[in-house]
Amino acid sequence: MYKYSLETDHKGFYRITDKVEDAINKSGVKEGLCFIFCPHTTAGITINENADIFVDKDVTLALDKVFPRFKEFQHDEGNSDGHVKSSVIGAGETIIIENGKPVLGRWQDIYFMEFDPPRSRQFFVKIIEG
Amino acid sequence: MYKYSLETDHKGFYRITDKVEDAINKSGVKEGLCFIFCPHTTAGITINENADIFVDKDVTLALDKVFPRFKEFQHDEGNSDGHVKSSVIGAGETIIIENGKPVLGRWQDIYFMEFDPPRSRQFFVKIIEG
Amino acid sequence: MYKYSLETDHKGFYRITDKVEDAINKSGVKEGLCFIFCPHTTAGITINENADIFVDKDVTLALDKVFPRFKEFQHDEGNSDGHVKSSVIGAGETIIIENGKPVLGRWQDIYFMEFDPPRSRQFFVKIIEG
Repeated sequence: MYKYSLETDHKGFYRITDKVEDAINKSGVKEGLCFIFCPHTTAGITINENADIFVDKDVTLALDKVFPRFKEFQHDEGNSDGHVKSSVIGAGETIIIENGKPVLGRWQDIYFMEFDPPRSRQFFVKIIEG
Repeated sequence: MYKYSLETDHKGFYRITDKVEDAINKSGVKEGLCFIFCPHTTAGITINENADIFVDKDVTLALDKVFPRFKEFQHDEGNSDGHVKSSVIGAGETIIIENGKPVLGRWQDIYFMEFDPPRSRQFFVKIIEG
Repeated sequence: MYKYSLETDHKGFYRITDKVEDAINKSGVKEGLCFIFCPHTTAGITINENADIFVDKDVTLALDKVFPRFKEFQHDEGNSDGHVKSSVIGAGETIIIENGKPVLGRWQDIYFMEFDPPRSRQFFVKIIEG
């Protein structure tokens, strides 16, 4: 298992594809699966478009509009909107490895997604040969 | 593959981390991946905060507010809101195994999430060494 | 890794369970995990009910109502609603293999879900023995 750290200062996407490639390279695995996991409950891992910076901004905006801080929330830390988004986006993503590289579509990158900044965050990468 | 059953009587989180640990222990696997799967279409598996009971209540409330029983729904069982939530939250979660234990953040637990109670439910756990 | 193609002409579910079974059969694997991946950023993979055609229609309708084309969106291709749904539904699904068959609940099927038709699409299936 490979561990990586990042500091977040805003909501939205933090590109981690290069870190995932680093983990695959270190493992030496050429064919298999790669699993990326977020150990936090107000953040997640997602895959989306890398070409236009506005995709990040639009996805983040839509999640804020759809999952606001409802006045009925009772969790006393006041960040239940982040907990909801964490379950909706999900704590992990799986990627196929071929020829020692992650299999991604032409427009895809892998992102750590922050819902409650600023925070010191981690994510873990596990490689399975097969 | 390990099978577990539960009875649900309300919407929301049912903590299953101890069952996942039981499956890992039975497998004897020390390093690998663990996959938890929900074979139902109005429930799912999620990972979220375990410390404050209100996180469960707030996430469940938010999903009810955002994905109501729209009057345009045509599915004659009347539980299409549960089907939508099932696709949004997802049927499965993957966890890394290290030293014979699931790798989770300090505040994370694994939950079966019910969207159409009461029901007799199952979930399956599969362990892959690697 | 097995590759499959499909043409989409409407939003919603495209049943791919038979393609996933085809990949498992070709691999010869009897026990393990099967991972299905969508390499596109305005589509995803989901598991939901197969018995009533209206579940597809209701889930698709609910996602359209909840995640509309917000007027604040800035991505110039005009399909940010599809990017949001792609992150919410997710790019992949994992399935357990037992006795050479995918483990699914009685009402479950595996679907490619289209959010920005019409498109020429692909999905990939990777099988891990274990």
